[in-house]
Amino acid sequence: MRLLGFAAATENASNGLLQHLALFMEYLLGAIGEVKRLSLCLMLRVNEEQFSNLMVRKINLCLKIPELESFTGQIKAFKIQRPSSGGDLPQTGEYTFPVARRVNSASAMMMGDDVENGNLGPYLDRPRTFPNMRSKPYTPLIFRILRGINVRVLVILLFLGFGYVFYIGASTSPIIVFVFSVCIVSFLLSIYLTKWVLSKDEGPPEMAQISEAIRDGAEGFFKTQYGTISKMALLLALVILSIYLFRNTTPQQESSGLGRATSACITVAAFLLGALCSGVAGYVGMWVSVRANVRVSSAARRSAREALQIAVRAGGFSALVVVGMAVIGIAILYATFYVWLGVDSPVPLLLVGYGFGASFVALFAQLGGGIYTKAADVGADLVGKVEQGIPEDDPRNPAVIADLVGDNVGDCAARGADLFESIAAEIISAMILGGTMAQHPSGFILFPLVVHSFDLVVSSIGILSIRGTRDSNVKVPLEDPMTILQKGYSVTIILAVLTFFGSTRWLLYTEQAPSAWLNFSLCGLVGIITAYVFVWITKYYTDYKHEPVRTLALSSSTGHGTNIIAGVSLGLESTALPVLVISVSIISAFWLGHISGLVDETGSPTGGLFGTAVATMGMLSTAAYILTMDMFGPIADNAGGIVEMSQQPESVREITDVLDAVGNTTKATTKGFAIGSAALASFLLFSAYMDEVSSFAREPFKQVDIAIPEVFIGGLLGSMLIFLFSAWACAAVGRTAQEVVKEVRRQFIERPGIMDYKEKPDYGRCVAIVASASLREMIKPGALAIVSPIVVGFLFRVLGHYTGHPLLGAKVVAALLMFATVSGILMALFLNTAGGAWDNAKKFIETGALGGKGSESHKAAVTGDTVGDPFKDTAGPSLHVLIKMLATITLVMAPVFL
Amino acid sequence: MRLLGFAAATENASNGLLQHLALFMEYLLGAIGEVKRLSLCLMLRVNEEQFSNLMVRKINLCLKIPELESFTGQIKAFKIQRPSSGGDLPQTGEYTFPVARRVNSASAMMMGDDVENGNLGPYLDRPRTFPNMRSKPYTPLIFRILRGINVRVLVILLFLGFGYVFYIGASTSPIIVFVFSVCIVSFLLSIYLTKWVLSKDEGPPEMAQISEAIRDGAEGFFKTQYGTISKMALLLALVILSIYLFRNTTPQQESSGLGRATSACITVAAFLLGALCSGVAGYVGMWVSVRANVRVSSAARRSAREALQIAVRAGGFSALVVVGMAVIGIAILYATFYVWLGVDSPVPLLLVGYGFGASFVALFAQLGGGIYTKAADVGADLVGKVEQGIPEDDPRNPAVIADLVGDNVGDCAARGADLFESIAAEIISAMILGGTMAQHPSGFILFPLVVHSFDLVVSSIGILSIRGTRDSNVKVPLEDPMTILQKGYSVTIILAVLTFFGSTRWLLYTEQAPSAWLNFSLCGLVGIITAYVFVWITKYYTDYKHEPVRTLALSSSTGHGTNIIAGVSLGLESTALPVLVISVSIISAFWLGHISGLVDETGSPTGGLFGTAVATMGMLSTAAYILTMDMFGPIADNAGGIVEMSQQPESVREITDVLDAVGNTTKATTKGFAIGSAALASFLLFSAYMDEVSSFAREPFKQVDIAIPEVFIGGLLGSMLIFLFSAWACAAVGRTAQEVVKEVRRQFIERPGIMDYKEKPDYGRCVAIVASASLREMIKPGALAIVSPIVVGFLFRVLGHYTGHPLLGAKVVAALLMFATVSGILMALFLNTAGGAWDNAKKFIETGALGGKGSESHKAAVTGDTVGDPFKDTAGPSLHVLIKMLATITLVMAPVFL
Repeated sequence: MRLLGFAAATENASNGLLQHLALFMEYLLGAIGEVKRLSLCLMLRVNEEQFSNLMVRKINLCLKIPELESFTGQIKAFKIQRPSSGGDLPQTGEYTFPVARRVNSASAMMMGDDVENGNLGPYLDRPRTFPNMRSKPYTPLIFRILRGINVRVLVILLFLGFGYVFYIGASTSPIIVFVFSVCIVSFLLSIYLTKWVLSKDEGPPEMAQISEAIRDGAEGFFKTQYGTISKMALLLALVILSIYLFRNTTPQQESSGLGRATSACITVAAFLLGALCSGVAGYVGMWVSVRANVRVSSAARRSAREALQIAVRAGGFSALVVVGMAVIGIAILYATFYVWLGVDSPVPLLLVGYGFGASFVALFAQLGGGIYTKAADVGADLVGKVEQGIPEDDPRNPAVIADLVGDNVGDCAARGADLFESIAAEIISAMILGGTMAQHPSGFILFPLVVHSFDLVVSSIGILSIRGTRDSNVKVPLEDPMTILQKGYSVTIILAVLTFFGSTRWLLYTEQAPSAWLNFSLCGLVGIITAYVFVWITKYYTDYKHEPVRTLALSSSTGHGTNIIAGVSLGLESTALPVLVISVSIISAFWLGHISGLVDETGSPTGGLFGTAVATMGMLSTAAYILTMDMFGPIADNAGGIVEMSQQPESVREITDVLDAVGNTTKATTKGFAIGSAALASFLLFSAYMDEVSSFAREPFKQVDIAIPEVFIGGLLGSMLIFLFSAWACAAVGRTAQEVVKEVRRQFIERPGIMDYKEKPDYGRCVAIVASASLREMIKPGALAIVSPIVVGFLFRVLGHYTGHPLLGAKVVAALLMFATVSGILMALFLNTAGGAWDNAKKFIETGALGGKGSESHKAAVTGDTVGDPFKDTAGPSLHVLIKMLATITLVMAPVFL
Repeated sequence: MRLLGFAAATENASNGLLQHLALFMEYLLGAIGEVKRLSLCLMLRVNEEQFSNLMVRKINLCLKIPELESFTGQIKAFKIQRPSSGGDLPQTGEYTFPVARRVNSASAMMMGDDVENGNLGPYLDRPRTFPNMRSKPYTPLIFRILRGINVRVLVILLFLGFGYVFYIGASTSPIIVFVFSVCIVSFLLSIYLTKWVLSKDEGPPEMAQISEAIRDGAEGFFKTQYGTISKMALLLALVILSIYLFRNTTPQQESSGLGRATSACITVAAFLLGALCSGVAGYVGMWVSVRANVRVSSAARRSAREALQIAVRAGGFSALVVVGMAVIGIAILYATFYVWLGVDSPVPLLLVGYGFGASFVALFAQLGGGIYTKAADVGADLVGKVEQGIPEDDPRNPAVIADLVGDNVGDCAARGADLFESIAAEIISAMILGGTMAQHPSGFILFPLVVHSFDLVVSSIGILSIRGTRDSNVKVPLEDPMTILQKGYSVTIILAVLTFFGSTRWLLYTEQAPSAWLNFSLCGLVGIITAYVFVWITKYYTDYKHEPVRTLALSSSTGHGTNIIAGVSLGLESTALPVLVISVSIISAFWLGHISGLVDETGSPTGGLFGTAVATMGMLSTAAYILTMDMFGPIADNAGGIVEMSQQPESVREITDVLDAVGNTTKATTKGFAIGSAALASFLLFSAYMDEVSSFAREPFKQVDIAIPEVFIGGLLGSMLIFLFSAWACAAVGRTAQEVVKEVRRQFIERPGIMDYKEKPDYGRCVAIVASASLREMIKPGALAIVSPIVVGFLFRVLGHYTGHPLLGAKVVAALLMFATVSGILMALFLNTAGGAWDNAKKFIETGALGGKGSESHKAAVTGDTVGDPFKDTAGPSLHVLIKMLATITLVMAPVFL
């Protein structure tokens, strides 16, 4: 091994200096392999153009330039150039290492001394690979089984499956056949999209290496995480089975001849199917994300537009799969029950198991993933950025791979499971409500499935409307990616409004109330407008173009403390407008439904709640496109990380940076969207719960009277549950981050060569530590969410039994659910908005405002950002899921409370 | 004027250095007044013992010590010693100025140069006075009128008053006579206590000067603040009058022959009386605090025990006045209505105006005071501590007087108004409930008055049990003041339990249910135990002896961000146990009452709610002692500030520091106590609201069904109100603090001599700025709290009218109230505990843990403390008041919602 040399120049170096450099390069070219005397080695950074000029000469240099001896600038990178020949010289290749320590003359001298003393280790050429972290490639069991089957058998099975699906569909309703067809077409489209994405190149080997390390980490975590979750799910399935075997049956079940055992098995099967589908939704999100990231990085070297298109299509693939799976899963369950069991309108109640399964998995996926991603992020930043002063995503940081893995398991996998659960819960609750409508129940029941089928269609059009340029090899000036995404969204939303009106006319037209369908269309419009306004409010509070974030940034100039106070107040304040909007939309949708003309046998209007349900559907009528935009964020983020780690030129990084920034915005806005739909959906699920209780208890259960002390206490406990859950979720991130900090510090101490690239950091250990810690930490808040409504309901049932208070357990749980929903909505809004605002206040300062990067204001803003991380990416999104999980668990566990 | 010299030594200076110093002192003694050559003046800090050694020699020195030329340590103080004689030399005296700038060799040289060049200004002797800030001494109008009256007339008036009071008392019930007597005795005792406190000396003139500046600032703020509040109260009185003139009357009023105009006038009069009493309660708290602080400082020079006793007795004075005024005010109103109007059980409803007046004033007092104190504190710290590196309460900080004023207006005045309102609201709601008991209503109605009369008795005994030592001039070893206070509390609580059992037997014994009184005694015991457990939980989460704060301190070692995350999670988590305790105590008290054997005409049990009322009374049965402990905190804090500013010796500061620390603990624990009683009381007020609505609406109003969309939205809006209120309260502190920061920075820039004691800072300007800013800032959150329930109730009343939904407004407001109460309790617990924990984590680090003062951990902990300031002293306590204010405003405004 020999010292090969360094090429470097500083950005603020004069051109004369560069010429000087060039002369020395000529000289050194001859001396290669025999560099004798070096009194100073100083690496400076050239810009891309200058460097490519250097590259042409294929020169390796080690040089002493007097002018540089007093250089005190920032050294950002040095490159080692290896010649293509030579005995013990390594192979050709070009590697770049970032160096971000401020080198003053003293350290420059020291480096010179090192070289003179033959202590050349730090400057020696090393093969630039990542530790081989490839474990056995992991494929979930279900895919392995599918792969193991002979192709012909598989084809036959598939045909049989399709045949069965269409048979039961045809036996049920033509609407179901329509839903099936749309879902299957969209699955085919998603296969096309994934093939298109996978056909893109993976870029140079160093990119692929990094990507593989990320993929292994993500798949490894997914495997253990979902292993744990499936064990818990099986346990819970047993609990549900035993509860349903010993509970009373409902009158509807008796009338349809469903026995206890049958309905228990159906509920458990639905639960497991929901859990499985939710798991698959998560897996799909992660699967495509870890494959698309490197392709986006690679494409960013060619064209911004192409990179954008790959990220969008990858997101689109998983969005179509997630939404399609939710729709077809429920449709198959519904049709199967309809055909096999011959029961009609009460069927939807059997679906609640599916919803609970989905939200159960989504909760743990979001908790585990959220803790993982933020613990790795915070831990990596605390040691890397703050203590060692190396940039984000620097390859010397042992936690960097864990951080990148986190984006995939925390954002992609968890968000896939989350959205799957949202849509499933919303469809099921709307179907239950539809089932209670007096006339034409089948149209009302199947309406949500049709709405989401159209969602698949219009979102696909929106996704495909985002096209690359013809000649992807020509660099075109970058159009603002946000504009491109917005255009696609506008296309989607216009089509969604049209199809929404069409489907209400098709399914919700009744002769009893001829204008009802129009009212419900308007409800849908209310939902769509609500979604729009929510997105706008979120942007207002989190975008640095607007007043709030600027005020927040300004408050950073007086210190860490004022920054946090301002951020907390901003977050708390930001709950007001969304609540007002939700209030207006619930009431207006309710009244639009109420006056639709639909009445029950006694002539009293019944359409009110269904109106809010339709508004929720309207809000979610572009869910697949929204999910695409959401998935786009973490893919772009990861692509940026890979570009940074593989030391691509500035121009490539600029492209991924722009995409990353857009991803941040879309992520924030979709969170607002998720909260809004959770608020609306939970209100529906709540009424479903009351229906469920009254059918189990065989007595009307129409009121939850919070003037009863026990019921009030149920509410108090429900709100407290939200506070405690948020506390534990945040604390889990803090604790796990501390473990990461310790490990990274340990590695820096035990392997001092890491900072000088002498030694490789042990990325795998950090990945393993974060994975095991976040798996451990997700149990406590998750168990709290699942156990507490059951315990509260059961305790108050017993108390009610001894104090002669019927249905006390059910009432207390209802109050718990309502208060938890309200507090959960507010808390999630607070956490998400505060987190987003802190993040963007930091970004605003980084644009140069208030002193820019490195100023005291910036340090205060970084503190805010660190605090915001677990708020907006762990506790906040977990609360979205928690709200709906509480609604579904109370539905499934209702027999326990009676 | 001549340079007189400096005496100084550093803590880390070797003994040899001190000897060196001593030699030079000898030399300089001869040269005094003719110091010729000085090439370096360097001030170092000696510890107390070393310094007193120096003092013995009465030496003034200016010296050049070669060893010191490279000194780079921290200079904390320098002293100027003036000889007792000499023509143009000033008089004898000893003054110490803190210097906390890090002096490196360069600045030391500069100082030396200054001296050589004759630029001796900064080192010259200056008379050490505070700017004369005395405005006209302010006395509220009512006291001025009283003073203006001839003494004989006054005596006659007093006798007439007493005569009237006892006449109506005797005409009503012997119980009322008992209450009157106890209150009058306790007023006499409070006069004794205040005479005792005022008889103590005010210490040296510099202490008195500082104290006068504080007093002027506090009285000035009080004047403007209460001016604004009284204008708003008058406006609101007009609104109430017009509402009550146009509303329906209740059946009870008709049966008792009360016309609309009469009941409107009564309500308005009660409102104004409540507001006036609340204002007087605040004034009394502040009045004694600004007089006691300097006496405590002065006494701390003699004996810790005496200082403690003065602070306790001063607190006791205002506690007795506040509690006594609440009791006697309600008793007089009740007796007047009883005698004049001849109405019996419905009377308590007429008292709600009193409660609302009290909480209206308390809300603005707490908001304005809370914003004032924390804005001054945060602003002073940000520039003084963080930017300029001068210690807390340093006389050079222009905001220091504003900070000390804040303690009085924020803690003493506001807490007086707050506790007055708590007790009034609790008594009134319990009286209303008592009025609904079928048998013996008068015993049940008057029970709360008796409980609080005994409260006055037992708390007086507790307060008097804390005694100074015989010979107050002998310094005795300091017993832990917490232990002394705890002993007093134990005495109080044992007596309270005994008297509680006695009063239940006396008033709650009925022949219908002979054992009911025992059940209610147990309810009271539940309340007392709840109070104890609450205090324990608060201590567990905020005392650094326990795990949570230690973990929080530990998390400071990884930075500002992790400190905040850990603090937020700690605060959120700390809501769980109190909620569980409250739940258990509400249910157990309810069931103890329920099974007490009391039944209504139909035979169904009626005692449940009254059981929870009795538990609340139990909790508040030692309120006067608790309030004493609470008032003790800010008095000790202020005394510490005066000691610091007047540069007393270390030993005096140690005493006030210990008292201050104890004050912090008692403040935190009484906050937990306040929340607990707010939670219980609001539940009572809620049921009172429902009774009120049903008597106005002349139809039963027993249920608040949150399954109705509008009612659910009312709940959502209620919770949102809490979030928005907290946001605005915190933001107000932030904004006001920024104004302080700007002003302090301006003064430091425009008057560069301040830092060198050349110029006096303009304390008055800071006081004026904070006062006007906090008056302005209190309006927004206060108006939100008052306007939003009225607007929501009225809007939904209109909506209900058009949609044919009777009582919709009342129901929505009920949900708003309940959800706001629940969210308010949780939010206040979160804010108080997080703030307290951050404060103590900082204190824990300051004891030397984790690197101690000045370390990175300490800086992170200071950030947490700054964030916690508005949490625990502005938003949190305002929420206590808000919860009860919402309950009373809905009671008074009920006619608007129908």
